[in-house]
Amino acid sequence: MQYLMRCARARLTAALVLTALLGLFATHVARAADEDGYDLWLRYRPLPTAPRAALAAAATGIAAPSDTPTVRAATAELRRGLAGLLGRTSDKIALAAQPRAGTVVLARAASLPAGLADADALRAALAKAGTEGYVVRRARVDGAPVTLIAANTDIGLLYGSFAWLRQLQLGAAPDRIALLDEPALPLRVLDHWDNLDRTVERGYAGESIWNWWELPNIVDPRYTDYARANASLGINGAVLNNVNAKAEMLSPAFIAKTAAIADVLRPYGIRVYLSVRWSTPLELKETKTADPLDPAVAAWWARKADEIYRTIPDFGGFLVKANSEGQPGPQDYGRNHADGANMLARALAPHHGVVMWRAFVYSPPTHPAQASDRAAQAYDQFQPLDGKFDDNVLVQVKNGAIDFQPREPAHPLFGAMPHTPLMMEFQVTKEYLGFATHLVYLGPLFQETLRFDTRAGGQPMTVARVLAGAQQGRVGGIAGVANIGSSRNWTGSTFDQANWYAFGRLAWSPDLDSRAVAREWAGLTFAPDARVVDPVVDMMMRSREAAVDYMTPLGLHHMMGTGHHYGPAPWVDDLGRADWNPVYYHRAGKDGIGFDRTATGSNAVAQYAPEVARRFADPATTPPELLLWFHHLPWDFRMPSGRTLWDELVAHYDHGVDEVDAMQAEWQRLRPYVDARRYVDVAQRLAQQRREAQWWRDACIAYFQQRSGLPLPAGVRAPDHALDHYRSLSFPFAPGHG
Amino acid sequence: MQYLMRCARARLTAALVLTALLGLFATHVARAADEDGYDLWLRYRPLPTAPRAALAAAATGIAAPSDTPTVRAATAELRRGLAGLLGRTSDKIALAAQPRAGTVVLARAASLPAGLADADALRAALAKAGTEGYVVRRARVDGAPVTLIAANTDIGLLYGSFAWLRQLQLGAAPDRIALLDEPALPLRVLDHWDNLDRTVERGYAGESIWNWWELPNIVDPRYTDYARANASLGINGAVLNNVNAKAEMLSPAFIAKTAAIADVLRPYGIRVYLSVRWSTPLELKETKTADPLDPAVAAWWARKADEIYRTIPDFGGFLVKANSEGQPGPQDYGRNHADGANMLARALAPHHGVVMWRAFVYSPPTHPAQASDRAAQAYDQFQPLDGKFDDNVLVQVKNGAIDFQPREPAHPLFGAMPHTPLMMEFQVTKEYLGFATHLVYLGPLFQETLRFDTRAGGQPMTVARVLAGAQQGRVGGIAGVANIGSSRNWTGSTFDQANWYAFGRLAWSPDLDSRAVAREWAGLTFAPDARVVDPVVDMMMRSREAAVDYMTPLGLHHMMGTGHHYGPAPWVDDLGRADWNPVYYHRAGKDGIGFDRTATGSNAVAQYAPEVARRFADPATTPPELLLWFHHLPWDFRMPSGRTLWDELVAHYDHGVDEVDAMQAEWQRLRPYVDARRYVDVAQRLAQQRREAQWWRDACIAYFQQRSGLPLPAGVRAPDHALDHYRSLSFPFAPGHG
Repeated sequence: MQYLMRCARARLTAALVLTALLGLFATHVARAADEDGYDLWLRYRPLPTAPRAALAAAATGIAAPSDTPTVRAATAELRRGLAGLLGRTSDKIALAAQPRAGTVVLARAASLPAGLADADALRAALAKAGTEGYVVRRARVDGAPVTLIAANTDIGLLYGSFAWLRQLQLGAAPDRIALLDEPALPLRVLDHWDNLDRTVERGYAGESIWNWWELPNIVDPRYTDYARANASLGINGAVLNNVNAKAEMLSPAFIAKTAAIADVLRPYGIRVYLSVRWSTPLELKETKTADPLDPAVAAWWARKADEIYRTIPDFGGFLVKANSEGQPGPQDYGRNHADGANMLARALAPHHGVVMWRAFVYSPPTHPAQASDRAAQAYDQFQPLDGKFDDNVLVQVKNGAIDFQPREPAHPLFGAMPHTPLMMEFQVTKEYLGFATHLVYLGPLFQETLRFDTRAGGQPMTVARVLAGAQQGRVGGIAGVANIGSSRNWTGSTFDQANWYAFGRLAWSPDLDSRAVAREWAGLTFAPDARVVDPVVDMMMRSREAAVDYMTPLGLHHMMGTGHHYGPAPWVDDLGRADWNPVYYHRAGKDGIGFDRTATGSNAVAQYAPEVARRFADPATTPPELLLWFHHLPWDFRMPSGRTLWDELVAHYDHGVDEVDAMQAEWQRLRPYVDARRYVDVAQRLAQQRREAQWWRDACIAYFQQRSGLPLPAGVRAPDHALDHYRSLSFPFAPGHG
Repeated sequence: MQYLMRCARARLTAALVLTALLGLFATHVARAADEDGYDLWLRYRPLPTAPRAALAAAATGIAAPSDTPTVRAATAELRRGLAGLLGRTSDKIALAAQPRAGTVVLARAASLPAGLADADALRAALAKAGTEGYVVRRARVDGAPVTLIAANTDIGLLYGSFAWLRQLQLGAAPDRIALLDEPALPLRVLDHWDNLDRTVERGYAGESIWNWWELPNIVDPRYTDYARANASLGINGAVLNNVNAKAEMLSPAFIAKTAAIADVLRPYGIRVYLSVRWSTPLELKETKTADPLDPAVAAWWARKADEIYRTIPDFGGFLVKANSEGQPGPQDYGRNHADGANMLARALAPHHGVVMWRAFVYSPPTHPAQASDRAAQAYDQFQPLDGKFDDNVLVQVKNGAIDFQPREPAHPLFGAMPHTPLMMEFQVTKEYLGFATHLVYLGPLFQETLRFDTRAGGQPMTVARVLAGAQQGRVGGIAGVANIGSSRNWTGSTFDQANWYAFGRLAWSPDLDSRAVAREWAGLTFAPDARVVDPVVDMMMRSREAAVDYMTPLGLHHMMGTGHHYGPAPWVDDLGRADWNPVYYHRAGKDGIGFDRTATGSNAVAQYAPEVARRFADPATTPPELLLWFHHLPWDFRMPSGRTLWDELVAHYDHGVDEVDAMQAEWQRLRPYVDARRYVDVAQRLAQQRREAQWWRDACIAYFQQRSGLPLPAGVRAPDHALDHYRSLSFPFAPGHG
């Protein structure tokens, strides 16, 4: 057995790098104090002198009702935030019974302060803020200047408080802050693929934050900080357990544990949901079948829902992975997905809960024409069910039709189910993108999908608008598979915090620009200083394309190592199902490379709206970055650049590696501005990413060269090793198996 | 399937308790700042005003060589510690080129400061300090008063620095501190049962601190804090991986990862060791057998040792679990444990490494007389091999002959192998003692074993003296199975930190009194204030006997739940091997209860020295707390208390529960003196321990009542549930399976 790292040399190199890095710091003892990342983007570090004085004058105290846990949470956050920004302890932030000059006033629309000037204008603004939005503005109460955080609901007050603190952290002058915002989607949910034994499927940040064993009687204070971080972004739901669910999740003991978590999250506007295993009642030996049309089964689920709601009155509902990758489901009984989803939905409906039913299925195909293309199978099963689902069912669709690849075209189901509310499922954890080691900012990936124009109905219709119900008014939501674990910094690396942040911000406002989101995050996480923000954002914005280039350029996909999905394994051809093998997806041979999804192949392009289908059907109109997703082309196919496909492929691999070089160089220039601890951690990860980008590039070029039989383009560096070396590497203890 | 916690009621109770606790704190905002426990006993919080001034005068700067990493580590710790105690930042602790008034001087024996008064007296003291000891005293250099930390070696300087800081933290006046100390044993080792996938067998504090996946190139700063904590106690070895080892541990990739850890630990005097799987070369397909007498096998191990030492020149050696609980070993090839250990020892000997060969074996017995008693089997296999082991082999013996029970008599092998150096193996993690939930201070358990008088040779001969080589000069060592994980507070609970601390302190000085160690720990962990220390120590000192009483009083043992070993399961009788079943150990029936290990039974008592064997052979001279370990007695056996055995058993169970009540009450009185975060966490755990003590008591009484057929003694409360309830509980996701 061999491994990637070649031992002594690699280790000594790493030790030297580390020594060198630490040595450099020894001469910079006056730099920022070390940070361990636990505070995320809610760091509230003291402002510089001048803005600190301005804030002290503009925030002399807080006036707020204290009658609900949510408003108390908002007040506590304001005290914490102001204390931090002002360099005080939070007990030095006064609570005011009445607004005075400089008071920060939390005001519900139904009880605006007496003496408020321009109250009608505020009411007009609040009319646009909906049930979760907020208005933040300077105002006068009995002539005294105050900061008003107003909303129609308590959760709006909490969201407004976080929004105001965000602006302050980013350096906005207190008297210039005026905000009016509300979320575009009602369901903004993190999906935890966390198991009951505390392992996390596809988790790279330690074990689950949920300590199921110690719950419900021992409650980790970390749950509160989790809730704060999510509420600061507007995330309002959490599915606590893995979609590959266990029947025991619905046992009385685990319902009690779930309720204890719900109690902590509730003041922060976060509902808990559970993933459920289809066959739960059967496995608990409480029914004789799991057939959704069996009345005893439906009755069991109704009773179970009643039981859950008795202790969790605001329970959100169920997430279901059924008839997918070995999970049981209604098809085991000759029923379809709608039969299954609706049965559960009827159990939840009396309690206003929802079912999020996943469309991630790829067996067994029923249309022979699409039997050969896994990418076509979810559409094939779900599109015909459009309109057959109960009102409280959402169909949850991954952003692309395969599986969270570095790049996929948007899933063809978006726009194709106008009568069904859809949930977007993004993956925030980087299963296929270098775990917590590689710096890959996912904002551009999320944005690319959300802005994809489905042309549904022959009109402009972005995926974001589909989710928001622009087709038939069926409003959906957005889910992200969490990258959160018990690591001190929550996500395993500093920059992976940005993916949690970007997911939350885009879930709230899918039209936000991912670069603007990166700017916010960089300012909050390091410092609102252009010398920091500009290079950090530049690194972030080039990072995703870099990973695409060194992993799977030009529309290639699913070439990662078996099981763990970490490194390159384009050669794998011996797995049980054809569509688990990388060779199934890239189809590289002497004749060319790529998956023909046009009419001459699987015709999966036909699942898109006609305008989109036509564009993807022709290599000339297919975006180059998706070329090999849709087309099988000869190695000498001429690319828009003028290069042959082979030369272009190699150039992309090289460019990916070069981009990591550039990111490393940018980070080194940031050394004076970042605390040593986070600096060294990121530097170590970038160095490893650089090695592994080279590994990806070398292994893929070596393999595709063997398939193509072509020489390397002139001037291109040969892979460091022969192909056999890369094929021999194995990683038996990779994290994330769950 | 049913579970322990009865859902809604238990949860609501917990929520109310928590709310009440937090509510109380709301009125105490001026209390100590929250602590998360990461700093362990190295908190270095600012001293009160008067002693702070005294220390400022007595520690004006540090004069130390800077030519070795170990002395640099000592200097860094002194700066960190003094800065904390003085309320400064560490860059405000001056480094002095020459001793001046108030300088803290780190001085090697070979280069004492010029101008030192009474240098000869110091040299005489240093002559008693050995290779790891130290002398700390006030001294004068050229007339200037200084604090001298002197040692024969660099590690002595580090240990002396930690010892001095400990005294300062405990409130000692700087001018009164005079220390001379050296360790009694040369090997003081933590055994990590950490797997390569980062799970931890019998770990209850999160996943492994070793991030094998990210090593060697990404090095967690936590490794340094781990090293500091261990060095502060004098622990000088760490076995990094589980004794149930994987072959891949010795692959080049994992040797490189190990080397990266060794690089971090080395300055702190900690050598790394690895657990090795006997069949490693065979499984790596590099030999055709694992027969220890096959020259190719021996050559493989010699080459592997060479490979390890090339990158880890101070590698400590191997820990081996062979022919034990399914692990392969030399007996698979008809060889014995000495054959196996010596083959490995010869591979390590050229590099001065050692083999720690575990005696935890219990199959297959060769003496028919002892075939029926697992407690006798390790002695049976190992005692005849005394004198057959190479010089660099240590036989590692668990403290008792079964498996880390709440109470066991000392293992009969101690004293019975005078020609073989023995390692004590304690378990610091509480596999059988309530995980990280129950507060059980293990100091008294360690002390009880270390002070057990083996009467080997008919003379006083404590286990501690056996380890120190008092029999034939064969000096052994001491190992503890670590309770350390990635939990923020390292050990899963505040009070479990005390078990790491006590293990380390007793490993250094096995004669230390466990109450004195508890006083140190309490002072360091909370505050050196009698109002805190006295009740904390009282809780700690009664805690172990409380657990014995509510779990397995009067010498009962091994009645814990199958696999996870958490709750009570005395009824289990259906496991594959007879000696895996609780009924095998307690043998309760109509006729009585207990395991007859006298001549009428397994005669395991004969494995002790004659004086001890005689004492244990007679119920009248057997200590009551070990009675049922050695004797099967009728239920109406008259105890020294005058009660019948049955009444006494029930009384012990009740007393155990009462003791937890008392611990809870003591902790509540400590509320004003402990920060809210740690207070609440401990309070939650004690409340859970109270519930579970009741569970243990009720389940065991219900079961033994069924076996005995006797009525409950007068006035005794009946169990809350019928026996069937307790038997029905299951815990499929308990932690620690590894």
